[in-house]
Amino acid sequence: MTETQTITLLDSTLRDGAQGEQISFSVQDKVHIVQALDELGIQFIEAGNPGSNPKDLEFFREIQKIPLANTKVCAFGSTRRKGIAPEDDGNLQSLLAANTGTVVFFGKTSVFQVERILRAELEENLAMIRETAAFLKGQGRGVIFDAEHFFDAFKENPDYALRCLEAAQEGGAETLVLCDTRGGCLPGEIGRITRLAAERFDSCAEIGVHTHNDCGLGVANSLAAVEAGARHVQGTLLGFGERTGNANLSTIIANLELKMNASCLPAGHLERLTSIVRQVAEIANITLDSGMPYVGHNAFAHKAGMHIDAVLKDPESYEHIVPETVGNDRVILVSEAAGRAAVLEKIRKFDPLITKDSPVASEILKTIKDLEHSGYQFEGAEGSFELLVRKALKRYRPFFKLHYYKTIGEKPRLDDYLCSFAQLKIEVNGQLEVTAGEGDGPVHALDVALRRALERFYPAVSHIRLTDYKVRVLDSQSATAAKVRVLIESSDGAESWSTVGVSSDIMEASWLALVDSIEYYLIYDFERQLGASGQ
Amino acid sequence: MTETQTITLLDSTLRDGAQGEQISFSVQDKVHIVQALDELGIQFIEAGNPGSNPKDLEFFREIQKIPLANTKVCAFGSTRRKGIAPEDDGNLQSLLAANTGTVVFFGKTSVFQVERILRAELEENLAMIRETAAFLKGQGRGVIFDAEHFFDAFKENPDYALRCLEAAQEGGAETLVLCDTRGGCLPGEIGRITRLAAERFDSCAEIGVHTHNDCGLGVANSLAAVEAGARHVQGTLLGFGERTGNANLSTIIANLELKMNASCLPAGHLERLTSIVRQVAEIANITLDSGMPYVGHNAFAHKAGMHIDAVLKDPESYEHIVPETVGNDRVILVSEAAGRAAVLEKIRKFDPLITKDSPVASEILKTIKDLEHSGYQFEGAEGSFELLVRKALKRYRPFFKLHYYKTIGEKPRLDDYLCSFAQLKIEVNGQLEVTAGEGDGPVHALDVALRRALERFYPAVSHIRLTDYKVRVLDSQSATAAKVRVLIESSDGAESWSTVGVSSDIMEASWLALVDSIEYYLIYDFERQLGASGQ
Repeated sequence: MTETQTITLLDSTLRDGAQGEQISFSVQDKVHIVQALDELGIQFIEAGNPGSNPKDLEFFREIQKIPLANTKVCAFGSTRRKGIAPEDDGNLQSLLAANTGTVVFFGKTSVFQVERILRAELEENLAMIRETAAFLKGQGRGVIFDAEHFFDAFKENPDYALRCLEAAQEGGAETLVLCDTRGGCLPGEIGRITRLAAERFDSCAEIGVHTHNDCGLGVANSLAAVEAGARHVQGTLLGFGERTGNANLSTIIANLELKMNASCLPAGHLERLTSIVRQVAEIANITLDSGMPYVGHNAFAHKAGMHIDAVLKDPESYEHIVPETVGNDRVILVSEAAGRAAVLEKIRKFDPLITKDSPVASEILKTIKDLEHSGYQFEGAEGSFELLVRKALKRYRPFFKLHYYKTIGEKPRLDDYLCSFAQLKIEVNGQLEVTAGEGDGPVHALDVALRRALERFYPAVSHIRLTDYKVRVLDSQSATAAKVRVLIESSDGAESWSTVGVSSDIMEASWLALVDSIEYYLIYDFERQLGASGQ
Repeated sequence: MTETQTITLLDSTLRDGAQGEQISFSVQDKVHIVQALDELGIQFIEAGNPGSNPKDLEFFREIQKIPLANTKVCAFGSTRRKGIAPEDDGNLQSLLAANTGTVVFFGKTSVFQVERILRAELEENLAMIRETAAFLKGQGRGVIFDAEHFFDAFKENPDYALRCLEAAQEGGAETLVLCDTRGGCLPGEIGRITRLAAERFDSCAEIGVHTHNDCGLGVANSLAAVEAGARHVQGTLLGFGERTGNANLSTIIANLELKMNASCLPAGHLERLTSIVRQVAEIANITLDSGMPYVGHNAFAHKAGMHIDAVLKDPESYEHIVPETVGNDRVILVSEAAGRAAVLEKIRKFDPLITKDSPVASEILKTIKDLEHSGYQFEGAEGSFELLVRKALKRYRPFFKLHYYKTIGEKPRLDDYLCSFAQLKIEVNGQLEVTAGEGDGPVHALDVALRRALERFYPAVSHIRLTDYKVRVLDSQSATAAKVRVLIESSDGAESWSTVGVSSDIMEASWLALVDSIEYYLIYDFERQLGASGQ
């Protein structure tokens, strides 16, 4: 496209996205996701089907109290049922009760689907579409029509498929969305069919597209439709949805804005993309795919030694865009394959005089290699990596010495409270401290006991909160004797840091990550105080 | 394409794929992956860079002892270095030492890259490409040339980019692979540029394509190149690779064979796709993305109630292909959203007379809902789901009663052996049994003690092996007090089953999954014996 084209976006994370495995949203989650999408600048949000899920009505009541700057929240439902007048259809009444300015409804467009699944006459299906659009329009709502199975329907019987679009347009729908419901079409046919529809409805309705990723082509198919004249694109921000997912809207947004001279977000908002995506992942409680285009943690990560050398010379060598354009960062992964350049880059933070020929650089590389071999991974544990470097550079002193710890887990519980118990003994500058802690599981109990012991010597420990705790089983085939890697994320409210521990004993792995977390913080706290006292 | 086109494939899982985060292969892993890809029928495998990694030479020695039916293993390297004759270049000598019938080498084709990163004269770069191809060809090797940055290079300076291809072809390269190294191109430009190259080299060389997924278009770009005349496609079977990954070869294979009338695997091998992909994921020790097109566990999974109803009427409604074509299966997810149809489908396995109006069906649905709310998930735990149904149908009896268990973890270890200890007391038919077990961590110790106690009463327990143990932290923000879900996979050598447990105590969650695993097996064993004795 030569002139800048404006594209409107509809996010279906809360509706189609909720069909993904492991996805389930509370009303509060939904409100938070709407706020995040509004901040990004998405125009429409399809937020639920009040007809099929009464819990959704509660959400629609809540969301009306929230001021939104960019986003219109829409209710979603189907056409009126066979043989029932729209005003008598309970589902349509629920759609209206959601009280949204715009309503999205879907209808069948495939002869096969109408006859075989819906078991209705072809003319009755057209009437269902037309009357539903007219009914919603008559109630003063904006109307978006999702033409289910449209591309397959067109290949099967183009006339009937187009008549369904006509019925919706005649009823009053402003946007006609062509859906590749099964996700089985290729970009060439999506483009060809969209172009036909766009030309046909050029003067009276906007054409939209809704694709799925069953052929790994969700994004490509959406872009092909835009090139062919679609001006409304539906997807889910992180790509989740039933089966292989919906078209990934974050990837589509970046491609449209950066590669296709189209505009779909308010000016300046593209830089918010990465942080909004990560926020939605957090609310949905899913682990974001680190390789997700544009927004993944590794989207601009470099591991191969040769690539890192080139990227340090000129980032354009292996980066198709400047990561900051979408709010992401370049990452130089610390790993065996990374070679000296990446590790040096990090060591120099502590001592700019160290060169690639310094013996200490080789020593650190060897240590990393050995630890990685035993299951460590520093790519997500910068805190532990820094401690390792400090230890090699002799810029480290231990803050305490462990004499022993002992944990006990019991079932049934001894009393009505927690089920695990830990006891430990540490030494700080020759002084001994014995403490105990109770917890929900032995790791929790150990965490409680250790903090209690350290607070006497280092009151700053009380500022540390553990914000994330992850367990990864490394060789899961060894079942309960498998080696595990524990990653802990901690925060003092202002900054956060991550640490790692590996062992075949989950207790020991947790302990290692816990100790790193506390030591990392105490070192920084200590240096901050030195700085404050002018030394 | 109207007539069937043959496409050759090159898998780079062992080379580009090894650049992915969390990926690292031992020599033995690499051998197993080659065997798996050979079984699938991939023609070329790029297996490593013997020049930059001496460990790779060990692999190339090993792989020559393995008979392969379909696959040619290739060594990978770069052109000769600036100002050095090919025969004096150590990297090229290593390439030859790998002793493969075909060699892949890459060279720069972008003026910017040659001048800025390589810092060589443009003519010298052409000589490096031509002489490297000629040298390898002269040693009797098949030669594939990877034209790095080709698409960007062509957009920058088409003449020079094409001269680089010419240099390789003149030197003797049979295949010229156009690489979108930064992954930043769109399908339209990939198609246009590939068509030009394919026409130019029509009579003397085969054109290949190598794409990355930085715009979420890795698959689409490969298909666009094939449509434009490329006959050789490079990717990685699971799509892993640096940054956002390489083009996903499993998706490309299925699209080519099922949607584009092309042939790239030996006849009948497409059905092996899913199991080979899962096998490679297993060897690479990564969790396969459940939404991966064609091969993911959820690629044909249905969760929405309405979709499930339609799929049970006619699978074509929401499936673009028959899952078995690629060796995958339809999955009906047991979940709150699934509604009665899916759950009934499963309950009827036990009692075909149960209808959707039976009170027991409602009761089971409610139990599932409650458990899901508390963090359970039966989508990957069919064993626990069956036990739940059996309990509701009163087709269950407990095999033992737990009086108590107690676990102790200690650091430092008491002796040189294991660090955890468990003790428990169970009751079977009024008889008490007290046992103890040592283990690598408290869960392992508990597992040992429980089996020891049960074997006296149920010798069949000794057939059960735990084959997988997974921990998922559910609300990781609660850190060490977070709720965890433990999934256990067990096997008796012939069959395998999965069970689940949820608790904020990892010990208790593991215990619940463990007990389900053993009870599930004992029930089947019991029924098998009943069957065998004619009852």
